[in-house]
Order: sequence, then C-alpha cells, then structure tokens
Amino acid sequence: MALTIYGVLRSRASRPVWLAKELGLEYRHVPVIQGYRLPDPAAPDAPLNTTSPAFRAINPNGHVPSIEDDGLVLHESMAITLYLARKHGGPLAPRDVAEEALATMWSFWAVTSIEEQALSTRAGGEAVERELPGLHRYFAILADALRAGGGWLVGGRFTVADLNVAEVVRYAQGMPELFAAQPAVRDWLAACQARPAFQAMWAEREAEPA
Amino acid sequence: MALTIYGVLRSRASRPVWLAKELGLEYRHVPVIQGYRLPDPAAPDAPLNTTSPAFRAINPNGHVPSIEDDGLVLHESMAITLYLARKHGGPLAPRDVAEEALATMWSFWAVTSIEEQALSTRAGGEAVERELPGLHRYFAILADALRAGGGWLVGGRFTVADLNVAEVVRYAQGMPELFAAQPAVRDWLAACQARPAFQAMWAEREAEPA
Repeated sequence: MALTIYGVLRSRASRPVWLAKELGLEYRHVPVIQGYRLPDPAAPDAPLNTTSPAFRAINPNGHVPSIEDDGLVLHESMAITLYLARKHGGPLAPRDVAEEALATMWSFWAVTSIEEQALSTRAGGEAVERELPGLHRYFAILADALRAGGGWLVGGRFTVADLNVAEVVRYAQGMPELFAAQPAVRDWLAACQARPAFQAMWAEREAEPA
Repeated sequence: MALTIYGVLRSRASRPVWLAKELGLEYRHVPVIQGYRLPDPAAPDAPLNTTSPAFRAINPNGHVPSIEDDGLVLHESMAITLYLARKHGGPLAPRDVAEEALATMWSFWAVTSIEEQALSTRAGGEAVERELPGLHRYFAILADALRAGGGWLVGGRFTVADLNVAEVVRYAQGMPELFAAQPAVRDWLAACQARPAFQAMWAEREAEPA
C-alpha cells in the first residue's frame, strides 16, 4: 500500500479520501486531529494532532490533509486531489492540457471565491449578512457554468474539478436560500453527493468520534 | 498570435505576463483596469474595466487576469501560469507528475498562507500586528523548503512554482523584518526578481498610468 492520507474526515482530508474511493485506491488513513479541537494538544496522552512533533515532521504547516505516496509528501487538499487524479487517470482525470487548466482554475476559484466566505458564515448573524450577496453572485456564476457544461464543470462528465468545488460548496449548505436561487447548483451538488464514493466517505466521517 | 492576456500589470496579471516573457511567447496584452480604481467604472467614457460588459462576457467573475489562448478562456492567475508552463514545457515547467503536484501545492500554499494575510497588512497599524506572527511562521517554512531545495522550490531550478510564490511574497516587501529574519527567502526573492523577464514586466508595469 503506497498511499497514506493524514487527517480526520471532519477536515479537508474528506477531499482526498473521497477521491481515493472514487478511484478504488488502497490507502492507509491516519486520522490526525486539528490541534485546536483538543483541550490540550501538547498533553503527553493527547492523540496525534496537527501540533504533534510527529506530524509537524510531515507537514510543518500543521494543516491537514497531507499525503505520502511512494516517497512524495504533498500538502494542500486541492493539489492532492489534482495529483491523484492525474496520476491514476480515468474519467475523473483531466484528459488534456485544457481540461487540466480548467480543473485547476475551478479549484482555485472555489478557494478564493467561496471557501473562506462560506466558512465565515458559521459565526452566524452579521457574518451571514456580510457574505450572502457575494455568495449569491458566485453561485450564479457556478450555475451558468454548469448549465453551459451539461451539468458538470469540465468535459461534460464528473471530474476532480466537480469533487473539489463540491467539497467547498458543501460549506454553504447551511444557507438553503443560496441553493433555492440556483437549482443548477442544487442538482449538481446532489448528484456529486449521491455518488457511492462520497457516501462511503461520509459514512466514515459520521462514524468518527465527535 | 494566439495568446491574449487581460489585466493591467498592477494586478495579478503581472504573473502570466512575467511567465510569458520567461517563455518568449508572443501575446496581446489588454490592460483591463480593476473597476474599483475608477471614479465611475460604468461611465460611457470609462476605460475597459472589470465591470465593463465587454469584459464580463470574458470573465463573469469580474477579476483579472484572464487569458484567451487558441479558444481556451481561462481565469485565476495561478491556474493560468501553471497551464502556460505545462503547455510550452522547458525548464520552467514541471517535468513529471510529482513536480506538477509540488508546483500546484506551492501555488495553493501561497494563496492560502500568505496572500490575503500580506495584502491585509496594507491597512497598516493593527493589521500588521495581527498578521506578522503568522507571516513569520510561514516565511520560516518557506526558508526551510528553499534550503532543502538548493535555493528553489521544485526540482533544484527556477520553475513556475517559484514565479507563483514570489509574486505573492512580493506583497510582503513592505515588511522588511520578515526578510531580515529569513535570509533564504530574501535571497531567493532577489534572484527571482533579478531575472530579465521579471525586470521587463516590472518596467512595463511602472510605465502604466497610475
């Protein structure tokens, strides 16, 4: 087994785990916890976490996920999924340099246009008021792209681009008005999350200790 | 001439323009201005800007840069430079799937760990106090990677990864204490910015109307 994925599934490690299940890869999963979730991450009996020296030796940033794959250590969830898709090929992978460019573009777009904005709404109240107009605008752009692309972002089929963007759009699922305004996004996210690989990842995530 | 790059050089369009000059590509440069820089971006005599319908037809997000390249329309500066490097090959391009993964990883790392943090310090005062500890920590991680990599991020040579990260680290150049603490970062950025292609881009940028 060449691939190890570090990070609990209640983190961005959900992304590479979903992808690994899509591809049917064998992997070892090491559920490194975010240090901020623990009362004392430095305690001698604390579980392996993002502040543990053993994990900092793998990722000095102290973030999850990271992977090790045949000697390659890689961080940043989006880079990891793009790498695994490219390496293993098949329908989820970009099939040429243009599809590769678009998958990379959509991954950056999700990070810069949706992710922090959606995560910050978890504070509720004013944060939701502040972020909703921008999220509505970006959801409309996503809906237009999905309609133009036959329901998917790149190449008319489910690819790593959909997986990466769907995992970010998931953070906005607490704001149903965004999806009501854009049925194309609602239907696309439902189709992504109906995939057996997502369902399998989600079941493991739900089974993790809270 | 197949390649068009949209965006003034006082924007993230500096990245694809620097890369195009590194590769010796012919391109058409359309200096689309950020709408927020204009007193009235919707005025009939306003120059082409990110709110102009003609530009929104190219990039509905209303951001620069975008490119058109033989029919491919692409946004997100990091995705654009990775695409152009991959398409044209040579020493700046990743030479295998592992180098591709690392170049993509460093590009995401720069966006998520440095970019907004450095840009927000432009407000001065409290913003600098708030962001400096995190920036010091990430600069130390970057310095370690540069030392381990023989002075470069990927493959022991200047690549698109260095270009992408250098363009983000540039936003921190108003905080010399960060560079004084990490001479490896200081020397690497100086080497990146000494390249003739960067110098040519910068001269054009300085010649743009303020």
